[in-house]
Amino acid sequence: MTDEQLKQYNDWKFRLSAYEMALGLIGIDKLTVAPPAGAAYRDERTAFLSGEHFSIYTDPANLELLKVLKEEVEDEDIRKEADTYYRDIMKIVSIPKAEYVAFQRATDASYDAWIEAKQTNEYKRFEPHLKSMIEWRRKFCSYRNSELSLYDQLLDNYEPGMTQEAYDVFFNRIRERLVPFIDRVSEADAIEDAFLFQSCDTVLQKKWTENVLLPYLRFDPDWGYQNETEHPFTSWTCENDCRTTTKYLENNVVSSIFSTIHETGHAWYEHNIDPKYDGTILSTGVSSGMHESQSRFCENYLGRSLPFWEANYPSLQKQFPKQFGSVSLLQFMNAVNASHRSLIRTEADELTYPIHILIRYEIEKGLFNGSISTEQLDRTWDEMYQKYLGVHASTASEGILQDVHWSDGSFGYFPTYALGSAFAAQFYSAMRRDIDVDEALRSNRYIDCIHWLKEHVQKYGARYSADEILRRATGESFNPDYYIDYLIDKYSRLYQL
Amino acid sequence: MTDEQLKQYNDWKFRLSAYEMALGLIGIDKLTVAPPAGAAYRDERTAFLSGEHFSIYTDPANLELLKVLKEEVEDEDIRKEADTYYRDIMKIVSIPKAEYVAFQRATDASYDAWIEAKQTNEYKRFEPHLKSMIEWRRKFCSYRNSELSLYDQLLDNYEPGMTQEAYDVFFNRIRERLVPFIDRVSEADAIEDAFLFQSCDTVLQKKWTENVLLPYLRFDPDWGYQNETEHPFTSWTCENDCRTTTKYLENNVVSSIFSTIHETGHAWYEHNIDPKYDGTILSTGVSSGMHESQSRFCENYLGRSLPFWEANYPSLQKQFPKQFGSVSLLQFMNAVNASHRSLIRTEADELTYPIHILIRYEIEKGLFNGSISTEQLDRTWDEMYQKYLGVHASTASEGILQDVHWSDGSFGYFPTYALGSAFAAQFYSAMRRDIDVDEALRSNRYIDCIHWLKEHVQKYGARYSADEILRRATGESFNPDYYIDYLIDKYSRLYQL
Repeated sequence: MTDEQLKQYNDWKFRLSAYEMALGLIGIDKLTVAPPAGAAYRDERTAFLSGEHFSIYTDPANLELLKVLKEEVEDEDIRKEADTYYRDIMKIVSIPKAEYVAFQRATDASYDAWIEAKQTNEYKRFEPHLKSMIEWRRKFCSYRNSELSLYDQLLDNYEPGMTQEAYDVFFNRIRERLVPFIDRVSEADAIEDAFLFQSCDTVLQKKWTENVLLPYLRFDPDWGYQNETEHPFTSWTCENDCRTTTKYLENNVVSSIFSTIHETGHAWYEHNIDPKYDGTILSTGVSSGMHESQSRFCENYLGRSLPFWEANYPSLQKQFPKQFGSVSLLQFMNAVNASHRSLIRTEADELTYPIHILIRYEIEKGLFNGSISTEQLDRTWDEMYQKYLGVHASTASEGILQDVHWSDGSFGYFPTYALGSAFAAQFYSAMRRDIDVDEALRSNRYIDCIHWLKEHVQKYGARYSADEILRRATGESFNPDYYIDYLIDKYSRLYQL
Repeated sequence: MTDEQLKQYNDWKFRLSAYEMALGLIGIDKLTVAPPAGAAYRDERTAFLSGEHFSIYTDPANLELLKVLKEEVEDEDIRKEADTYYRDIMKIVSIPKAEYVAFQRATDASYDAWIEAKQTNEYKRFEPHLKSMIEWRRKFCSYRNSELSLYDQLLDNYEPGMTQEAYDVFFNRIRERLVPFIDRVSEADAIEDAFLFQSCDTVLQKKWTENVLLPYLRFDPDWGYQNETEHPFTSWTCENDCRTTTKYLENNVVSSIFSTIHETGHAWYEHNIDPKYDGTILSTGVSSGMHESQSRFCENYLGRSLPFWEANYPSLQKQFPKQFGSVSLLQFMNAVNASHRSLIRTEADELTYPIHILIRYEIEKGLFNGSISTEQLDRTWDEMYQKYLGVHASTASEGILQDVHWSDGSFGYFPTYALGSAFAAQFYSAMRRDIDVDEALRSNRYIDCIHWLKEHVQKYGARYSADEILRRATGESFNPDYYIDYLIDKYSRLYQL
């Protein structure tokens, strides 16, 4: 490895990171404030820039260099970095650039169609795009020459190492233990939570979030910014530039609160990665499941706990005295944890949440093994919600059109949501052995929990695999029992079963 | 001109427009919501992307093609387009790319320093960057081999065809006729306007702007978006993507109102350019002065008129009953036009505004002919404000640090602000011959005025020179008397002189 080669490699990484920054910011802009009538003009040019990024990324000369680096360099960080680039590039290197650019264009069109379809409740408007996204994924995977099945390849994109076989074990466990338990919960006395759905001025909600919640979460405007959008997400360009979004709903004050805690959890992960990885492939969460474990940790394991609200409920009551003045802390706590068999994944409680994912997982498997087609997918969706949760969507936007993910071809992504929740349970158990979580939350030291996550998970970025991180942080590989036990224990107490 | 050449040319334009879109959106992001701690990371990559744009823009093979196009092609639109590109490229083609990238980086650093200096009121923090920006401009101009003097080259960048000689004539006229007139106004009975500076909740200001003002101005969220920023500006990527910003001040409710009318005036110009020019050098206002003529037309000639407020004042009173319930329309009208010898350019009234520009023009001339240095420029600034307006800034942020423009090396730009106001007066006179402006404003048909501007000015983009547009729209070349007569007439009546 000559100095010249190292310079060439660093230069390659820098050029890539410049396009990634631009594409990232254009993407955030599109999802938050970009005027819709300009979409076609912007999308066409965004597709071109994606193509430029693709050309640099798959540059054959650099691929040769990566082969050398990943095997011959002494520095283990660089070896890991080069190896990670190499594996990732091999997944796409055989895709003709023109097809890659056409895919980017199709993705933008599909997203725009999803937005329109959702607004007008017409699944038919989106269906051809969904079909096209599946075909694109199938086509791209066919270039890979992989031994993995099609759906396994997609699963591996988001959670390296995970397969349909492994997910089947996980989801079967959920089906066996949680589905009957949820039935029992649904037969228990309902928890009063109607007061959560009173009208609360969204301007005041935003004020409370900005003045109380974000400071409590230590989300620092120096490196973070929260915007509003239809479907909350987090995006980032480097350690010191992490963007979150939320959505304020007049008749559901806790919706934006928990989405804020969730998204800032993602932001903390990216912010806390060792800055020596900035601008490289290691400077990101190691997998989607690991990312989701951090956000759900914050949202559920911290945000839905009593000590969190011991610290924050008084100020929420003060902001909305008419709505919450006569609701006790305990009533509020029970309400934000109440379980309902409901329609909307992002509004689901912790207990039924994995069932929403189970349904999407079953549908994805079917779409890619050919047993389910897109044509009547709105009906298939409805049948599965009837079967597993006993609920029926009266509009497509409450049913199949509720999520953004399939609109941009992110198949194989949903299962990581449940996996992340399960990782989080395992981290939660380990963290409680090390620090007094409840006391930290109660006494405005949320940051103590974040520091634990930083030291045991976040600082590594993608330097170690998800499994290595789990073993280092908790002393064992992934074990879904932590998750299922936690849910059954929590909800048994809540519903006095 | 072969088909192959035409394809090559179109491809070149498309690639350029993609980088311009990306750089435009990154720029808006930087000035509105980007987390400050990420600036260094982003700026370095933005500089790289600017360099890529520069490489494409100055590609020698394309320059040869432009030479053919601008002389041999029959289509006059294409000839003009190629000629405009050619002239523009010749201004920068001899700059070494590495220097160009270094300049972009220096510009970002200078902007960041200006922000900091303004916050801490320390001119010294910004001074080295200002000096550096001047040197960069001097250096870049030295590559041009132009016969024009240094400052004339800078003036020509923003207002093609204008020179120091021509501006001297204009500003001398302003100095001779307006300076003594302003003295007379300042001796007349003051107009009561203290009520404008009462506290008005910025959340309610924003609500009024979004619910009343923007709809009145027909600023359509389908193609436009208004954000908030320290220093309001307008930016755009195409006909259907025009972004404005404003700043809400608690103790100056009309500040954001007039900045909104002003910036949406810029946005209308870009939106109304014939879309056949989208993505080319002709799809932008023909000069800075012409752009400013459109924004100031909206802000002052329309927005500060009685019929505009006959339509809008009742709802403003309703939004702020405590502040304006007992202020009559006429009192309000007089107040928003009241003249003060004051410190802040962007808050200046119509009458004293050109004096703020005159001061900046004199300073720029001095900086580039060597008679003024940056070291004590804060003092020089203060002396000139004393001399022309009799006021003294107690902090640098109210003095030399108030404007963003020099921080990014935009020397030669300020004079176009006064020129634009003067163009606008000439258009105003012509428009009133064609349509009943007052009746349009009064009866919620602001759009009629915009349509006149579209048909006579805006739709042409940069297809015709500023002088050609003035002659087509008003029947004569630029004549500053319209402006000075308008101001003297308006303020003589207002102050009963």
